[in-house]
Amino acid sequence: MTQLPDPSLSRLFDPQGIAIVGASATPGKIGAMPITLLLQHGYSGRIIPVNPRADIIAGLPALPGLDALDDAVDLAILAVPAAHAAQALERARPGQVGAAVVFTSGFSETGSDGAAQQERLCTIARERGIRLLGPNCLGFMNVRRNVYATFSPAPANGVVAPGGIGMVSQSGAFGAYAYSMARERGLGLSHWISTGNEADIDVADCIEWLARDTDTRVIMAYMEGCRDGAKLRRALAAARNADKPVVVTKIGRTQAGAQAAASHTAALAGDDAVYDALFRQYGALRARTIEEFFNLGYALDTWKRPPQGRRLGIFTISGGVGALMADEAADTGLALPEPAADAQARLLQRVPFASGRNPVDVTGQAVSEPGLLLATADDMLADGRYDALAVFLAAAGSSEALWPTFETFARQMQARHPGVPLAISALFPPARRRELERLGCLVFPDPSAAIRTIGAVAGLGSGPAPGVVETSPATADAGALPLLDAYNEVQAMELLRQAGLPASPCVLAGDADAAVRAAASLGAACVLKVVSPDITHKSDVGGVKLNVQGDDALRSAYADILASVRQHRPDARIDGVLVAPMAPKGVECIAGVHCDPVFGPVVMFGLGGVFVEVLKDVSFRLAPFGRDDALAMIREIKGYALLQGARGAPPCDIGALAEALAALSRFAHARRADFSSVEINPLLALPEGQGVVALDAVVIRADA
Amino acid sequence: MTQLPDPSLSRLFDPQGIAIVGASATPGKIGAMPITLLLQHGYSGRIIPVNPRADIIAGLPALPGLDALDDAVDLAILAVPAAHAAQALERARPGQVGAAVVFTSGFSETGSDGAAQQERLCTIARERGIRLLGPNCLGFMNVRRNVYATFSPAPANGVVAPGGIGMVSQSGAFGAYAYSMARERGLGLSHWISTGNEADIDVADCIEWLARDTDTRVIMAYMEGCRDGAKLRRALAAARNADKPVVVTKIGRTQAGAQAAASHTAALAGDDAVYDALFRQYGALRARTIEEFFNLGYALDTWKRPPQGRRLGIFTISGGVGALMADEAADTGLALPEPAADAQARLLQRVPFASGRNPVDVTGQAVSEPGLLLATADDMLADGRYDALAVFLAAAGSSEALWPTFETFARQMQARHPGVPLAISALFPPARRRELERLGCLVFPDPSAAIRTIGAVAGLGSGPAPGVVETSPATADAGALPLLDAYNEVQAMELLRQAGLPASPCVLAGDADAAVRAAASLGAACVLKVVSPDITHKSDVGGVKLNVQGDDALRSAYADILASVRQHRPDARIDGVLVAPMAPKGVECIAGVHCDPVFGPVVMFGLGGVFVEVLKDVSFRLAPFGRDDALAMIREIKGYALLQGARGAPPCDIGALAEALAALSRFAHARRADFSSVEINPLLALPEGQGVVALDAVVIRADA
Repeated sequence: MTQLPDPSLSRLFDPQGIAIVGASATPGKIGAMPITLLLQHGYSGRIIPVNPRADIIAGLPALPGLDALDDAVDLAILAVPAAHAAQALERARPGQVGAAVVFTSGFSETGSDGAAQQERLCTIARERGIRLLGPNCLGFMNVRRNVYATFSPAPANGVVAPGGIGMVSQSGAFGAYAYSMARERGLGLSHWISTGNEADIDVADCIEWLARDTDTRVIMAYMEGCRDGAKLRRALAAARNADKPVVVTKIGRTQAGAQAAASHTAALAGDDAVYDALFRQYGALRARTIEEFFNLGYALDTWKRPPQGRRLGIFTISGGVGALMADEAADTGLALPEPAADAQARLLQRVPFASGRNPVDVTGQAVSEPGLLLATADDMLADGRYDALAVFLAAAGSSEALWPTFETFARQMQARHPGVPLAISALFPPARRRELERLGCLVFPDPSAAIRTIGAVAGLGSGPAPGVVETSPATADAGALPLLDAYNEVQAMELLRQAGLPASPCVLAGDADAAVRAAASLGAACVLKVVSPDITHKSDVGGVKLNVQGDDALRSAYADILASVRQHRPDARIDGVLVAPMAPKGVECIAGVHCDPVFGPVVMFGLGGVFVEVLKDVSFRLAPFGRDDALAMIREIKGYALLQGARGAPPCDIGALAEALAALSRFAHARRADFSSVEINPLLALPEGQGVVALDAVVIRADA
Repeated sequence: MTQLPDPSLSRLFDPQGIAIVGASATPGKIGAMPITLLLQHGYSGRIIPVNPRADIIAGLPALPGLDALDDAVDLAILAVPAAHAAQALERARPGQVGAAVVFTSGFSETGSDGAAQQERLCTIARERGIRLLGPNCLGFMNVRRNVYATFSPAPANGVVAPGGIGMVSQSGAFGAYAYSMARERGLGLSHWISTGNEADIDVADCIEWLARDTDTRVIMAYMEGCRDGAKLRRALAAARNADKPVVVTKIGRTQAGAQAAASHTAALAGDDAVYDALFRQYGALRARTIEEFFNLGYALDTWKRPPQGRRLGIFTISGGVGALMADEAADTGLALPEPAADAQARLLQRVPFASGRNPVDVTGQAVSEPGLLLATADDMLADGRYDALAVFLAAAGSSEALWPTFETFARQMQARHPGVPLAISALFPPARRRELERLGCLVFPDPSAAIRTIGAVAGLGSGPAPGVVETSPATADAGALPLLDAYNEVQAMELLRQAGLPASPCVLAGDADAAVRAAASLGAACVLKVVSPDITHKSDVGGVKLNVQGDDALRSAYADILASVRQHRPDARIDGVLVAPMAPKGVECIAGVHCDPVFGPVVMFGLGGVFVEVLKDVSFRLAPFGRDDALAMIREIKGYALLQGARGAPPCDIGALAEALAALSRFAHARRADFSSVEINPLLALPEGQGVVALDAVVIRADA
């Protein structure tokens, strides 16, 4: 189902007429730059300078104010100081101006006075039905329509070609740098947008609009924070559903970076691990560096379709560099299957000292024998065993004499193997590189960067977007456990059971007789634990007895617990004694939910003991999610091998573990208004086929 | 103490005359290329074409064979097929030819026939006192002296400038690519050497020679394997002692890469983790990718002195990118101290909405106010709190109008703060970039690459090289435990004690009375364990009793153990029962030694349990080493936090742990001829001040 782009943003980003408030004739002034660029690049719409102190600006008749304009205008650029911006907009009639771009700074980024001024600007805009980009932003460009609603100096140093990449940046400086980088790297843009203070339109709005824009095939976004998590999820889902890959750089991965981000941006940064989970969940590729940002954008734009799987063929004219590329492939999780036996045999027939395995090494012979490249690739790809091909040509790429060989190779590869994306690593002169790129072939000077990029984009977009999160208020289900002020372990376990999670049976016994009855119903050796809202470390006060069996033993264990607890903590309230069967053998895991202020309930998974406490080896997903996301978050932890059966232990029931996490996520989402956190510790993963069981849980109410 | 370079290699790499055997006049032939290049670039020595079928080649009189030459000649280039190479060299008189470079392939890389041919070539060379580079190599270049003893097409596409980087590559294809890359990136080379099959001269020889060569300041090496570990250690030590940084790329980091490497090179690859340890130990920087290889070489060459510590100042005109850089700094372990309070105050006075912390954000204001960059940097650096400065200029770098500002900034920085290396991130036009580099300033388009590179080179060369390993045969010390066929636990612990390692006291008791006496001497609750060469899993056969106290209990435990073991394993030989005190509380570690075929004894360290078995979280160092290397290997493991006192436990005695590892390394080295492996498991790390204690050990004889 294709949705149309938001018409109010379409009016902004593809305006038929533009009024420039604060228009100036002085070169370099922010009120002069958009007019200069619009004229220079042949913008076809109407350009209306607005300035009360001039009649003509850049040869165009100027108006004193927006109210002097008879018609409606799609876009007003506000290039006036903060103090005058609201005033200028106020003069527009309701419905007259579609959208405004506010360049100037001095708003919320400067403190509370500026924030008040920004609020006033927003109110005026809202009253008049005007969408707002900025303030404190560099504006935007619609590259195909020659709309230069910006005062960034970047296009003055050379413009980028029109193309399929829609680029949006919260930061103007990053955006301007990215624009220059796109020009240097020969990438084509559909739109370039800087959102600044995001008083109205934010990065998520732009992503969603670009996802529905027909000129855009790939979205590259830079963000510092997000105030509306549900909107960002909707935007990423829209991009995924439209099959448009999103590459995103989000600052604040580390504590140092988050601190720097917090001191820079007024927007709530939120927990970075949650952003990471969000991007994984919606198939957005997170780039850690500007270079990676561009490598990914470049690959997704140049290859019309990313590799459909993770099976990579490598062929080189240097065995050593082949090994370097194999190292990188292993790091990035790409498989390197061997070519078919007959393909290997044919290669060794042609080049006796070649290596027929993968990486295939055709040796320097390829330089003297032009047909060898294509023949080898044809052989490797004959039976569909590779999803992508990476070729290293060493210094030969710099040789003009060999250019026809390489050009033929790239052209024929495209014709014969269109389904296998090709990346060549060599030092081609820039013009030659562009020719290869036009043939749909990636070119990287660094072969490892080629492999890393393939690893990042391989298999992208193969899954559907997670369901869009409904925004209806969450309430307690009918018949569910009533909302209590505090939940003891037994009640917490009952909640989990209602949520569809396998929780260990347990009974709260109020006296020794009840404990004996409980043990009889459980029919096994039992563990007894004191239940008290005042006691956290039960063992320290003698509140736990393990492996109790037989009525007498149960009675005496019950009595011992109460006596010991009363001695150690005479004031503690005691709810009773929990009776549960002794735990079977399994791998101890931890599952939890906490409520992110931006994105709502987030599920955490990790292994017990040192894994969570020392190694911080945990993974996250935003609730709700299904089995596939749960499996991905289980596989993501470093200690995953332990669940697969390390140290002679049987493999765990990973499917059941995934179902449990998905159930927890549904519960956390459905009752997000009721509960602020859940911790299941331990969640015991039993051997394959035996499921999982929650042994203990802590549940905290939302208003606690 | 400066050592002179090996004169035989000096004669090779700086020849006064060169004979080209197989000289040709046909352009593109491997016998023609060196002559063309030598003439074209004005080599000042004598050039002697050797070819029995021509009188004049390239205008130079040709000789029929080396024997027709009256004088001695420093270098002979052999550009003839493998079958003729030995024959050609045979015609040289002993002492007549200093060295030979053998271009042609068809030697050991092709199998056993080729290997025999290579062996014959070596014998002939040895008999005549000729050093050999290759065969199957691209030769070498001495860039300053215009010696082009190569048939690589790389210099034909443009030569690199002379400079301070000595580059050596085992692979010709990698070497040619690296040469082209150096040209593209504007790096200057002293020498470029490809070693090929390494029949005589290998990468280590070249590193050692470059370490002593006055033209070379930085060494960049590519290697696939190494056959002489001691030589490589000597070479790296020579470079370190000469204060010349070594950047090295070694293929085969991963299993996939190692497999590819093994199928490519005949040289023994060895265990990659051991190479990693070697490079760390000798302060060589290992680059994972060609790009990193060049970033590191570029930084070490451009900055005459790397940052002396890890305190980085970041200043930018974009807060967001500052945060991105802070993220990278955190990843690479750089500290970001804040500027002094008065420096922050002055900045905020100049630019009210700047951020005075580190990253310092001067905002776009820097573009309109030329003095701001320098004033900010002066303030930040006034009190010596930074070891390096990274600056991000966003898109402004592309602006020709702002060039004078940036040029002045770089020049003044060099003059005022010569001890603080500067890296600028911006998109300068190539010529402008070169100008900044000439001022000693690094330029990176990607700010993260700038930070990563600073992180890799910061503090480099601050320690002395580890002592050079003596090559005298290792023998058992006088008075040491005699060499036995097999060591039981008690003997193994005695060996450790002799090696200076704190081993838990333990006694081998032959009967119950002896066990009682032993327990009395130990004076604590004891553990009893059966000692038998035939029993590995003692607990499974009832061979272990814990926490035994009192004579009666000891006697009955002794009897129980023997009875149970005899029942389960009637054929097992029983040496007796080990009596040891119960272990105190501590963190269980594992220390081991294994013998690497190339590098000799290697010490391994890790934490017990899942850390080694599931996470493979271990570190290595080559024996012998001192306390500092031991501390580094302890800090290197991911579970290090556990030793620092995670989960409420007291911090461990890390100093004692380091001393124990160093002692183990001295033992392993001194007695490397006697023992092939040692495993101490567990090595218990006790709380700070209480030392460590080895609880159990297995020692295997070298010939076992």
